[in-house]
Amino acid sequence: MTHSGSHADDITYWEREVLDACARIPAIDDAAREQALARQRRLTKPPGALGRLEDLHAWMAGVRGTAVPPTPNPVIIVAAADHGVATEGVSAYPSAVTAQMFRNFVSGGAAINVLAAHAGARVVVVDAGVATDLDESMPEGAITTVKLRKGTSNFAATPAMTRSECTQLIARGIGLARDLAADGVDVFGLGDMGIGNTTAAAALTCAFTGHRPALTVGRGTGIDDARYAAKRAVVERALALHAPSPADPVGTLAAVGGFELAFLAGVAIGAAATRCAVVLDGYPTTAAALAAAALAPCSVDFMLASHRSAEPGHDLALAHLGLRPLLDLDLRLGEGTGAALACSLLTAALRIPHEMATFDSAGVSRAEDALVPET
Amino acid sequence: MTHSGSHADDITYWEREVLDACARIPAIDDAAREQALARQRRLTKPPGALGRLEDLHAWMAGVRGTAVPPTPNPVIIVAAADHGVATEGVSAYPSAVTAQMFRNFVSGGAAINVLAAHAGARVVVVDAGVATDLDESMPEGAITTVKLRKGTSNFAATPAMTRSECTQLIARGIGLARDLAADGVDVFGLGDMGIGNTTAAAALTCAFTGHRPALTVGRGTGIDDARYAAKRAVVERALALHAPSPADPVGTLAAVGGFELAFLAGVAIGAAATRCAVVLDGYPTTAAALAAAALAPCSVDFMLASHRSAEPGHDLALAHLGLRPLLDLDLRLGEGTGAALACSLLTAALRIPHEMATFDSAGVSRAEDALVPET
Repeated sequence: MTHSGSHADDITYWEREVLDACARIPAIDDAAREQALARQRRLTKPPGALGRLEDLHAWMAGVRGTAVPPTPNPVIIVAAADHGVATEGVSAYPSAVTAQMFRNFVSGGAAINVLAAHAGARVVVVDAGVATDLDESMPEGAITTVKLRKGTSNFAATPAMTRSECTQLIARGIGLARDLAADGVDVFGLGDMGIGNTTAAAALTCAFTGHRPALTVGRGTGIDDARYAAKRAVVERALALHAPSPADPVGTLAAVGGFELAFLAGVAIGAAATRCAVVLDGYPTTAAALAAAALAPCSVDFMLASHRSAEPGHDLALAHLGLRPLLDLDLRLGEGTGAALACSLLTAALRIPHEMATFDSAGVSRAEDALVPET
Repeated sequence: MTHSGSHADDITYWEREVLDACARIPAIDDAAREQALARQRRLTKPPGALGRLEDLHAWMAGVRGTAVPPTPNPVIIVAAADHGVATEGVSAYPSAVTAQMFRNFVSGGAAINVLAAHAGARVVVVDAGVATDLDESMPEGAITTVKLRKGTSNFAATPAMTRSECTQLIARGIGLARDLAADGVDVFGLGDMGIGNTTAAAALTCAFTGHRPALTVGRGTGIDDARYAAKRAVVERALALHAPSPADPVGTLAAVGGFELAFLAGVAIGAAATRCAVVLDGYPTTAAALAAAALAPCSVDFMLASHRSAEPGHDLALAHLGLRPLLDLDLRLGEGTGAALACSLLTAALRIPHEMATFDSAGVSRAEDALVPET
């Protein structure tokens, strides 16, 4: 998929796409949720004994609007882009790694390929602005390209992207989600790749939650003290320079975000607009979710926090969204790896109401049958 | 499999089996562990970025004695038995549910059947002392029977079982693990079923950890305040009556344990003796692990804590073993359900070193290549 040239510079067109999708997000189906919980109470186990697996079933019922949704058909959207701010020396890795890892995703050698396969999820690799030309070297149809430019500008000095670019990328994310949902996808795991993007995630988290950089800047792929100090100074400088406001999510994303993050915010909105589940990964995808939530507060009801990452700001971003992570495995890789693990748990949770026997079908006594203590 | 009659009453024979297995438990292979970590550092991701998945690989390498063990071939051993203490009114369910759920395991309708299938694990259903005769109604070969009696005696009044019964059940567990390991099983998930067994788990946890019943007694399948008070009083009474000593693990298991718990303690020891991994589930299986650890301290190195259950004493038992649970999903079902979910994560962790590209094979730059900040 490449972007349709006809609308490329038509900001009103893209703005309308985004506004329409935000307006289309339905309410969670409370009746389906209640029916799911009632179904769980008939299964051969003490009520509530499967804990968060039961919650996952009920949540998915509310998302999909049906009491016992089919087992999921998940994809992991791995969106990659480069970040101008990487020139400030905020990462342990050179920007060239973004394109190298992109090729690794396409050839199937990255962690996300392994964990998505384990979860039965397809990987959709998206070039949202990698600094290297990638199209020509890729097998036909292997990647989705929504690239407007080869990486953002350095937001320590100038906005990362224009408002028009940001709006267009959000709309592209919405469009991809709509197309995949039409193909039967019902769960969207979000994945990211972009050297420098935990710096953008920290700046976005400050802008949307009000926390200071001292709390939101972490060590990303594993930086030393000198780089950590530089990273924190860059975020402080950017916030002073752009003074991003949470009341203007597009302006905030444009000022201190990233191309892949704008695109993933769009995927989250588009998924919610089509009654699909959105599974967040680590810090960058959660920062994208903060932007989506600012644009469309109802979208949060469709989001699942897969894990608590080792990045300190991630927890603050999840708390702002009101989401409790499912896993806590000290992951700090991104790519959608935590999302893939959560997709596997979601599938397990949804197999339960399909495959377990009920008290009646299995001839098992309920707790109520034992109200008189045995003697 | 039924127990071989020739040794049925020969306590010296069973004692020797147990002592031999304890003595056979090898040390963890530190060299293989180190090689696993070295392998992880060559994979295309920042060092350590897969967190506990990397730890799982390294641990399994140490358990199996090879740097990159094959992806696991797990079983879940669901051992069921009845508990005389259930007559004290400590459970929300009648004892009849043990046999009803046993049949449910065999016909494939229980939660563990679903979650084991999801994890690619076979379920081995063991009658370790269910109060109902089950053999005749079961398909040929569907169950393993190691039943000495139809449920333990009420340990609020008398020891749950004799020392001889306890020793024999531990030895039977060792034997099953040895047989399955010879068939290629390398991961043993422990599962339990037995109305009344969280009462036994609480008493065992008090005996082995020194904590008081106020901290170790929980609400099991979900009991009200009156039953909770009765359950706690029963544990207090049993501890006063038997004064079990952690220095005598067999005596403690015999006094306040359960048939399925003695059997599972044996499975844990037998698995460790054949360099296999032991995946604990909730409170009862962890109480069995406390007994195994008291008999053979090295066996703990072969144990993985799958999850932190909603039972308060479970955390204390895990802390005593020095194990950090992998998952925290508010599960409180037992049957091996948490163990099955952890087996799926273990498989994911072991697919990583087999399927991921290395920096060299994928042409991806390492962090060291970026020591000079980009400009």
